[in-house]
This record gives sequence, structure tokens and C-alpha cells, in this order.
Amino acid sequence: MSKPKVAIIMGSDSDFNTLKPCIKMLKKFEIEPDVNVISAHRTPENAEKFAKSAEENGIEVIIAAAGKAAHLAGVLAAFTTVPVIGIPIKSSTMDGLDSLLSVVQMPKGIPVATVAIDGADNAGILAAQILSLKYDYIKPMLKEFKQDMRSEVEAKNEKIKQEAAQL
Amino acid sequence: MSKPKVAIIMGSDSDFNTLKPCIKMLKKFEIEPDVNVISAHRTPENAEKFAKSAEENGIEVIIAAAGKAAHLAGVLAAFTTVPVIGIPIKSSTMDGLDSLLSVVQMPKGIPVATVAIDGADNAGILAAQILSLKYDYIKPMLKEFKQDMRSEVEAKNEKIKQEAAQL
Amino acid sequence: MSKPKVAIIMGSDSDFNTLKPCIKMLKKFEIEPDVNVISAHRTPENAEKFAKSAEENGIEVIIAAAGKAAHLAGVLAAFTTVPVIGIPIKSSTMDGLDSLLSVVQMPKGIPVATVAIDGADNAGILAAQILSLKYDYIKPMLKEFKQDMRSEVEAKNEKIKQEAAQL
Amino acid sequence: MSKPKVAIIMGSDSDFNTLKPCIKMLKKFEIEPDVNVISAHRTPENAEKFAKSAEENGIEVIIAAAGKAAHLAGVLAAFTTVPVIGIPIKSSTMDGLDSLLSVVQMPKGIPVATVAIDGADNAGILAAQILSLKYDYIKPMLKEFKQDMRSEVEAKNEKIKQEAAQL
Amino acid sequence: MSKPKVAIIMGSDSDFNTLKPCIKMLKKFEIEPDVNVISAHRTPENAEKFAKSAEENGIEVIIAAAGKAAHLAGVLAAFTTVPVIGIPIKSSTMDGLDSLLSVVQMPKGIPVATVAIDGADNAGILAAQILSLKYDYIKPMLKEFKQDMRSEVEAKNEKIKQEAAQL
Amino acid sequence: MSKPKVAIIMGSDSDFNTLKPCIKMLKKFEIEPDVNVISAHRTPENAEKFAKSAEENGIEVIIAAAGKAAHLAGVLAAFTTVPVIGIPIKSSTMDGLDSLLSVVQMPKGIPVATVAIDGADNAGILAAQILSLKYDYIKPMLKEFKQDMRSEVEAKNEKIKQEAAQL
Amino acid sequence: MSKPKVAIIMGSDSDFNTLKPCIKMLKKFEIEPDVNVISAHRTPENAEKFAKSAEENGIEVIIAAAGKAAHLAGVLAAFTTVPVIGIPIKSSTMDGLDSLLSVVQMPKGIPVATVAIDGADNAGILAAQILSLKYDYIKPMLKEFKQDMRSEVEAKNEKIKQEAAQL
Amino acid sequence: MSKPKVAIIMGSDSDFNTLKPCIKMLKKFEIEPDVNVISAHRTPENAEKFAKSAEENGIEVIIAAAGKAAHLAGVLAAFTTVPVIGIPIKSSTMDGLDSLLSVVQMPKGIPVATVAIDGADNAGILAAQILSLKYDYIKPMLKEFKQDMRSEVEAKNEKIKQEAAQL
Repeated sequence: MSKPKVAIIMGSDSDFNTLKPCIKMLKKFEIEPDVNVISAHRTPENAEKFAKSAEENGIEVIIAAAGKAAHLAGVLAAFTTVPVIGIPIKSSTMDGLDSLLSVVQMPKGIPVATVAIDGADNAGILAAQILSLKYDYIKPMLKEFKQDMRSEVEAKNEKIKQEAAQL
Repeated sequence: MSKPKVAIIMGSDSDFNTLKPCIKMLKKFEIEPDVNVISAHRTPENAEKFAKSAEENGIEVIIAAAGKAAHLAGVLAAFTTVPVIGIPIKSSTMDGLDSLLSVVQMPKGIPVATVAIDGADNAGILAAQILSLKYDYIKPMLKEFKQDMRSEVEAKNEKIKQEAAQL
Repeated sequence: MSKPKVAIIMGSDSDFNTLKPCIKMLKKFEIEPDVNVISAHRTPENAEKFAKSAEENGIEVIIAAAGKAAHLAGVLAAFTTVPVIGIPIKSSTMDGLDSLLSVVQMPKGIPVATVAIDGADNAGILAAQILSLKYDYIKPMLKEFKQDMRSEVEAKNEKIKQEAAQL
Repeated sequence: MSKPKVAIIMGSDSDFNTLKPCIKMLKKFEIEPDVNVISAHRTPENAEKFAKSAEENGIEVIIAAAGKAAHLAGVLAAFTTVPVIGIPIKSSTMDGLDSLLSVVQMPKGIPVATVAIDGADNAGILAAQILSLKYDYIKPMLKEFKQDMRSEVEAKNEKIKQEAAQL
Repeated sequence: MSKPKVAIIMGSDSDFNTLKPCIKMLKKFEIEPDVNVISAHRTPENAEKFAKSAEENGIEVIIAAAGKAAHLAGVLAAFTTVPVIGIPIKSSTMDGLDSLLSVVQMPKGIPVATVAIDGADNAGILAAQILSLKYDYIKPMLKEFKQDMRSEVEAKNEKIKQEAAQL
Repeated sequence: MSKPKVAIIMGSDSDFNTLKPCIKMLKKFEIEPDVNVISAHRTPENAEKFAKSAEENGIEVIIAAAGKAAHLAGVLAAFTTVPVIGIPIKSSTMDGLDSLLSVVQMPKGIPVATVAIDGADNAGILAAQILSLKYDYIKPMLKEFKQDMRSEVEAKNEKIKQEAAQL
Repeated sequence: MSKPKVAIIMGSDSDFNTLKPCIKMLKKFEIEPDVNVISAHRTPENAEKFAKSAEENGIEVIIAAAGKAAHLAGVLAAFTTVPVIGIPIKSSTMDGLDSLLSVVQMPKGIPVATVAIDGADNAGILAAQILSLKYDYIKPMLKEFKQDMRSEVEAKNEKIKQEAAQL
Repeated sequence: MSKPKVAIIMGSDSDFNTLKPCIKMLKKFEIEPDVNVISAHRTPENAEKFAKSAEENGIEVIIAAAGKAAHLAGVLAAFTTVPVIGIPIKSSTMDGLDSLLSVVQMPKGIPVATVAIDGADNAGILAAQILSLKYDYIKPMLKEFKQDMRSEVEAKNEKIKQEAAQL
């Protein structure tokens, strides 16, 4: 059986580094990332075309990342009923607030599932959670991931307790 | 076959009116809403218990709505791998910004799919989009809903054009 | 000779009242307003179609008004080289900041000429200023309007001076 | 035939580097930039004189860039009916929000066509779009520029797709 | 001997009610208010003329009140070395933040002494404090006013203590 | 044995209504409230005197409430080592942000325990929690209060579940 | 007699450096710090367990530090009646505002005593002030600390006066 | 005749570098700066003592600079009727907004003449403008300074025009 597919769309290739953790997270959960650079403003027809054909191309979740007046996620969501996850990217001004509000404050009818500013990891995890409803093999991986995070924090707890004792 | 179930958790019963469009939206898409008042701070054990047993109780998506330091969605997400949608509720101060940031700025590992401040409709639609991946019967309803929105806007376009001509 | 045409696009018919001063301002400067309700998210294809055919339909300036995650102006600008003026509309949360940032913070390549939040009058005046470069008959009207504003302020100055003397 | 002229006014010579892309953009569209340092506060009479004589000096669009309490665009607009484009410049505090609000929130009667914080490129493109209404030779250049942006994004799309496949 | 004169300039007659406490405060300190409606944008030449002649007209302090992109105080300050006090006026959007930043964030060289949003009383008191350096008769009035405020708070203290005891 | 004493200081008698829940909360936990109107700016010596003598007057916690540039809590804290709880009061502009930042952002050395904007209830509860360390009789009341809140939420849960079923 | 105990809980080990001044401050006041890394989201059960057993483990104050959607302090406070002090940690976006609002804007019933963004010193001092009500030996240390701060400022005053004279 | 005296009070010696331009500006206008480090919170009695004796010590204007919850200017103003100028200092979080609001949003009765964040130059110029009402010798210096600024901008205008021609 082929892996489920999640599209990652970035508005600019300058967002690529920020998005790498998202790509890796999807691969970790055995989801196939379909990575694209599509600008809502500079290649609007590509955005439309991508969104409209996403479902028939087997894309089950779309992750869209953009900065400033970040319209990408909303524009994609306008053309599809596939769930769209939005990642607001921090740009050189306004500390990410412009991106966040542009992504999350969608009007009635067209939701975008927004994660934290620059929250690429969480976009990948959220996509995996969504897909796990249909693809049962993802569920135990998500639980293991949750358990691993717990163990990691607990290990750090031990380490910091020792360092704190030295202060 | 029974309908898929989505939990709606509000942090306070005062959020109920804001959430009614969410409940209606779920019903429109033939999803069964399981409505609860659970406070992350006043009934934290209920929150934990609900989240931990959500999956085995057949809950496939959790929608959590809270205001001010709105921890509810994040707290629920900590105890489950079921996707959690967060609705920031505007309270009497800070115009919703406190709720929005408390819901959306989740740290790495625990995503919350955040919609607009007071965006109850969109939380319901997003839940339906997520469930449509697994439940095929929802897909045509989502497409019809999208088509209906378009028709509604087009009808309003005609109406406003006429009113504008009178100015 | 026919009048120059300016399109006014509102994202929702609920913006109509806010936009009436814009329509009146255009008429005052003998510009023909072409008023439309087109949602970037609910009728994206209509938005694209409108923007793509604007130039050949004789539209010389597009005024786009929307609230919240206000993508309308940017989406229209993506499909045309006709100047696009954006009016951020204040909605029920965030006091207009979300709309403002969503309209003005456009990425490199696709400008939107943004006016103040709810600044419908100024959008109309700006359109007239732009058109006055080509249509000479508008220039004296703009100058007269500027003169009228001055006279109005001066009259109010006299009135307030008298009222202040009574305090 | 001589080229159309656009004035670029910066409130401080420290804004020059930020504005270079604007100057280059105008030249790209065969528009003659008339570059000036004029402070609304330190050389107010020069600002007034420039704005009042802009039209008779053949200036068809004014681009004004300033930071902090950025009054320059509004002050110039007060003295002319030539369209004024405002560029809010980010300064050392408040991340550009002060400049943005000072430029965009103009009162009724005196519009400033505001672009993004530090959005020098877009100010140049917007000026070209405005002038293209009158100067037909600019139109195909704007369309070619739009096409070039599209091609550039598409090329980056190919490049990133390959890089992503290596992750 | 004639009273010292303080000019009160409002950008719009709609600010008059907000400014009444300022006028009364000046009168209380036996300072002559010279009340004017002058818009920096709609009557810029009147603003310039007023500021340039303020000193020779015996104006010793200028109080300027405006909202939104509130350039008035800065514009007046550009044309005079008389101290300028700025009152940011809250308008219908942005809760006064736009006005505050437009008034207070003045660039190097041209200060505006800014008081709180809608802080008309304090503008009057500040003018009196400034004038008291030169006009000795104002000093005891300022001290008496300070004493009166203290007494008023102390009286309220007694009253509230009694009311609180009833709760 | 006499009850422990907590001072409630408000900067203005206009804050009294907002503070009533704080007074009632203290009484609920059998703590004696000592209610005062003292302005940091209009009665600074009373503030100093109160803070300096608080400890010897048996005050064990000080609750200070003020709006706008809310210096009261910090000023009191400067003169005592008794714990000071600050309540930022929302005023007519800036939606409480000014008060919050003025209260909470205290420099190193002089903490103020800040609660939510208008958070009078929580100030009372926090005072009770602090005093419960020393006064054992308060502990069971705090636990009962926590239990009561839980029961209240659970009762509302039942009620809303029924109402939701009717939708 | 054993020292009183204060728990310091950080949401991530990356907060450790920011918290070192808090640990040192507690030690300075002869309070035993119990340092822990516990994430509200990644180790929620550890958070619950810690908070529930804090009182019986002799913890008298809990200091919780976290960034972004900083739920840690609120989550701990939900499970205990021990006073909880919250330190909002500045993260890579939003300049600490997200953390501050997530910590301080707690709903009615569950207070968190919030200090400044990154205000680790003050959290330690506040804990000492709270404990000084019960542990008399801390009081003179707090007074001496206050005196030392005064002396330090006064010494700096002398030094700066001399440096200023050289300018 | 001795020079008029202006006090400069900084809340922390770390503000000294930011304030040097203020000291130099006062000296330029032949005003004697009296430089002090006084913390409103760590040396509150020194603040009170300084403010109370300022007038009899010949201080005619007080300039107060502080960051974060910047109470210094307001606290000084509470104890004197000498005009107080406030400089909000940008600290490590909140980009200066906390300082600005803490300084400028003073309640009725106690004004602080606020300049821009980190606006040390302007505080010095404003003090000179205020003193020029009484000390005539300052007036021509202020006018010459204004003229010098103009000449400096005009010289930069020439320079930038040449550089721009090379692009």
C-alpha cells in the first residue's frame, strides 16, 4: 500500500529552512511529503490548480506556510475541501503578528487550521494526527512519539536537577 | 452505521452562545456533537479524563473553546493524539488577542489546530473536512456547502449591485 | 465620452454601509463605480475572473474591501496589473489590526495601495487622484474638493472659537 | 518623448539603502525617479514647496518614505492632488508598527496609498501600475514582470522539490 | 498685565468635547486659551501660518490634539520653537494606539511633549507647569491644585472605607 | 484570635465596583480586608506612609489596583517587603494593555504579583493562598472552594448538555 | 529546622539559564529550591502529580516558567492551592507577549502570581516575601536586600555623576 | 548669571549611554545638567527627596528616563509641580511598548511630557524650548539649531541626489 500524501506548500523558497522539520516529521510518521513552492500572489493560477486537483492527486492534507500578508493557506482552502494547515512565518517586521493574523483570522466558511508562528514541527504532527483517523498504522507511532517526548523531558529533568544542585 | 463523533468542550458555559453555530455545523454534516463544559483550571481532572478516554469513546476530533489565558485546547491535546481544534474566545479585555496567543502558540510536539477568534463555524467545518478523509459521505456535503456559499455570495452580489445603483 | 470606471469589490455584503462613502465619492468625481460582492474565499473563481478581465472591461482602478484575514485585495492584485486599492474593514475582534496587516503587508511584487481602516472616502479620493493623471477633467474637481475641505475646516474654526469663548 | 517622472522623497538619508529597490524598479519600468531627502519636520518648507510645485514640475506620483512618527507622506499629500504612495520605514523600536500606523491611518480627505513596512519594491511597482493607465508602454512591461515573477517561482519550485527529496 | 496665552489646536471640531477639560484647566490657572480648529492635512497652510506666527502673537505653549495618523502636533512643532504639547485622540479603530504612536514617536530634533490618550486635563496642567517657570503667580495655584487633588482622594478614601464596611 | 489582615488599595474610587469581588473573596476566606483609596500620584505620601507602616499595622498582604500608567502596586512595593499583588484595571483606552504592562513589567528587585486585567477575584484568592501557608485554617476553605468550583462547572456541564441536545 | 522549600518548574530545559538568578535568589534567602523540568504538554501527568503532591512534599510556593502558549503555571495551579508564581519566558517570536498573556490572564478562580517577562530574580524575591510571613528569619534578610539595592543604586549615582561631569 | 538647571534622572546606570545625547543637548543650549541615578523602586525615598527639593534647588525641568514598568517620571511628578519630561527606555522585551505606556498614560492631574522611546535628544531640546520662555538667550540658539538641521538635511539631499543618479 502506498503512503498517504501531504502537500507542503511554501510561499517562498526562503521559507524552506523553517519547513525542514515539517518534512522530517511527516517522513517520521511514514507520510509522503509533496513539497512545492507556490506563491498565492506570484503564481496564483498554480495555487488554484494545485488546490483544485489536490484531492484527485491523492493529497489528503495541505500544509501552507507564508509570511507577512500570508494569504497562501486561505487561497488554497478556497479551492478545496481537503483540510488546510497554515504555518505563519515570521518575517523581518512585526515579529510574526502580521502572518499569524493573516492566516488564522479566516472568515466564516473557509477554515485554516493554524499552528504557531514558525511552528513547522507541529504542522507535521497535526497532519499525522488527522491522517491517523483513517490510517490506523499512524496511531501507535503518534503514541510512541508522545511517549518519547515524555521520556526526553524526564531525562532533561534529571540532568537539570543535577546542574541546579551545583549552583 | 453510527455517525462519527466530535467533542465540543467549552471552558465556561458562558461560551455556549458563541459555540452554537459550531454545533449546528456539525449536525449539518451529519456528525454527532458531544457537548461538554470542562474547565482546564476548575475541573482539570475531568479534562484529563475526557481527553484520555476520547479515542476509546469514539471521539475522532476534539473542539475546545476558551477565553483569556485559554489553556483548554492545549491541556486536552497533552493527553490525546486525537486532533484538537482550538477556538479562542474573545473576553472582556484584550479583544481576543490573549485567547488567540494562548491557543495558537503551542510549543513543539503538541499542536492545536487554531481557528479565528470566536470562529465557531469554521471549527465545525474544519472537523468535517478532517473526518471527510475517512467518511466519504461527508465529502459531497462539503462540496455542496462550498457551492452554496458561492451561490449565496452571488445572490448578494446581485442585490448589492441594485442597491448601489440607487445611491 | 464615457466616464472612467472603478470597480468596488467587497468581500461581504455586510461591508456595504461602510463602503457607501466610497461610491458617493467616486460619483462626485464623475467616475463610474462598478460595485460587486466577491469573496476571495467563497467565490475565488469569480475573484480571479473579475481581476483577469478587469482591464479589458475598462476597469482602470480596483478598490477591494474586506475584514479579518482580508485576502481580497491581494488576491485580485495577483491576477491583474491594474492598480488595486485596499480598504481594511474593522470586524468584531482585533479592532481592525488583523485586516490592516492582511491588506498592507503584501510581499514583494504585488502591491496593494492601502488606506486607513474603514477608510472608504479616501479610497474613492485616491482612485480619483490616480485617474486624474489620465483624465484631466478630474484635476480641477480634486482641487476644488481640497479647497472645500479647507473652507469647511475654517468655518468650523470660527464656530468652535465662539463656543470656546462661552466655556 | 520624455519619461514620466516619479518623485521619491525620504525623510532621512539613512533610509536610502532601503529605498534603492524602489529606484531600480522605477528605472526598470522606464520611469524617471526624482530622488530627494526632505524631512517633514526638519525641512517643512521644502516639503511644502516640493509638493505644491510637483504637478507643474511634471511629477505624476510621489513616493514618500519615513520612520517612527512618519508624517512625511501625509504632509506632502496635504499640499497636492498628485497621488502619494507611503512607505513606512522600520526604525529601532516598535518593529515598524509606529511608522505603519502614522502613514496609513490618514483622516478623511487626504489619502496616502500605503505599502508594506520597508516595502520599497512594491512602491515602485505601484507607481508603475498607476502610470500605466496613462502611459501604455508600461503595461506590457508590467505583464512581463508578472510573468517573470511567475517563472522565477516556478524555477524555485523545481529546485526546492529536488532539495526536499534529499532530506 | 495680560495673561499668558496658550494655543489649543484641534485637528477636527469633533475633538472639541474631549478638549473642554483642557480649556477649563487653563482658565483655572488664569491662562488665556486661544482655541482653534486647524487640520494638518486639510488646512496645512493655516497650520504653518499659525505655528510660524505663534511666538510673535504671544503664544507661549501650543497644545495640539488629533486622532488616527495624528500629524498635527509634529507639523506645528516643525515651524516653531515654542513648546508643543500633543494629545493623542482615540478614534473609532485601534483604541488610540495609532494616535499615540503618531504623536509621540517624533524623530530627533523636533520634540512633542505627549500626554496620555485623550489626556486633555493633563495637557492643560502641563502647560501651566511650563508657564509657571516664568509666571510666578501660577506656582501657588499649581501647589493648591495638587493639595486639592490630595484632599479629594482623601475624602473619597473615607467614603469608600465606609461603603466597603457595608459589603 | 484576630483575623489576618489584607490591605486593598485602589488608585481611584472609580475602581471600587471592580474590586468588590476581591473584598467578598477575602471575607469568604475569613480574612479582614482593609480597604483604601490611595493614589500613587495624587497622594504619594499616603502611599509611602501606608506601605512603610503596613507590616507594623499587621497587614500581611497588599492588593493594589490601578489603571492606565498603573504605578500604584510598584510604588507600594518599593516601600515594603510585604507581598504586593497588583490588579491592572482596564481604562477607557488601550483595553487594559497599558495597565497590565505598567503593573507586571517591574524591574529586578521589586516584584509585584500580577493577576489578570480586572482580576479582582483572583487577587483575593491569591492572598488567601499566600496566607494559608501561615494560617492553617484557610487551607481547608481553599480546598472546599476549589471543590465548589468543580461542582459548579459539573452542574453547568449537565445543564448545557441538555440544552445542546435541543439545538 | 529544615529550610522552607520552593519548587521551580521550567517547561523546557532551554529555560534553565534564564532561571538561574531565581535559584540563586532563593538560596540567598536560605530557601531550598527544588528544581524540575516538567512540561505541561509533554509530561502532563508529571505536572499533575507534582502539583497534587506539592503540599504534602513540603513545597510552600511553586514557581513555574514557560514560553509561547505558556500553560504550565496555570496547569499546576489547577491542581493545588499552594501559591503559584508564573514567569513568562520570551521566545523567538512575539517578544514575550504571548507568554505574558498566557500566564497572567487566568480565569476567575485559579490565580497565578505573574512577574515580568523573563523576571526570574523577582520570582525568587516574591517567593521569599511570601514565605517571610511564616518564617520570620527571612524578613530581616529581605530588608537587608532592599537596603543593599539602595546602596548599590546610590553608589552608581556617584559614579555616573562623575562620568557625566566629563562629557 | 548662573545657567538654568535641568535634572536628568535615570532609573538605572545602564541607561547612561542612551542619555548622553540628552546631556550634550542641554550643554549645547547652555543649560546645566544635573545627572542622577535614582530608582523609583530601589531608592524611592531619594526619588521623593529629589523631587520635593527640586524647585528650591533651582531645578526648573526634570527629565526622567526608565524602562519596563517605567514609574520614575510619574513618581517624580507626584512630588513636584516642576515640569517632568519622560523618556521611555527600550528594554530586552516588548520593544519599548511597556515603557512608553507606563510613562505616557498618566492619570488625570499628574502629567508627564513624554518623548519617543529612547528619545534622549528630544528630551533635551524640549527642556530647552520650555526654558526659552523664561531665558531669552536660549531662543536664538533654538532657532539656529532648527536652521542647522535644515541645512544638514539639505546637504544630505544634494549628496543622495548624486548617489541616486549613479544607481
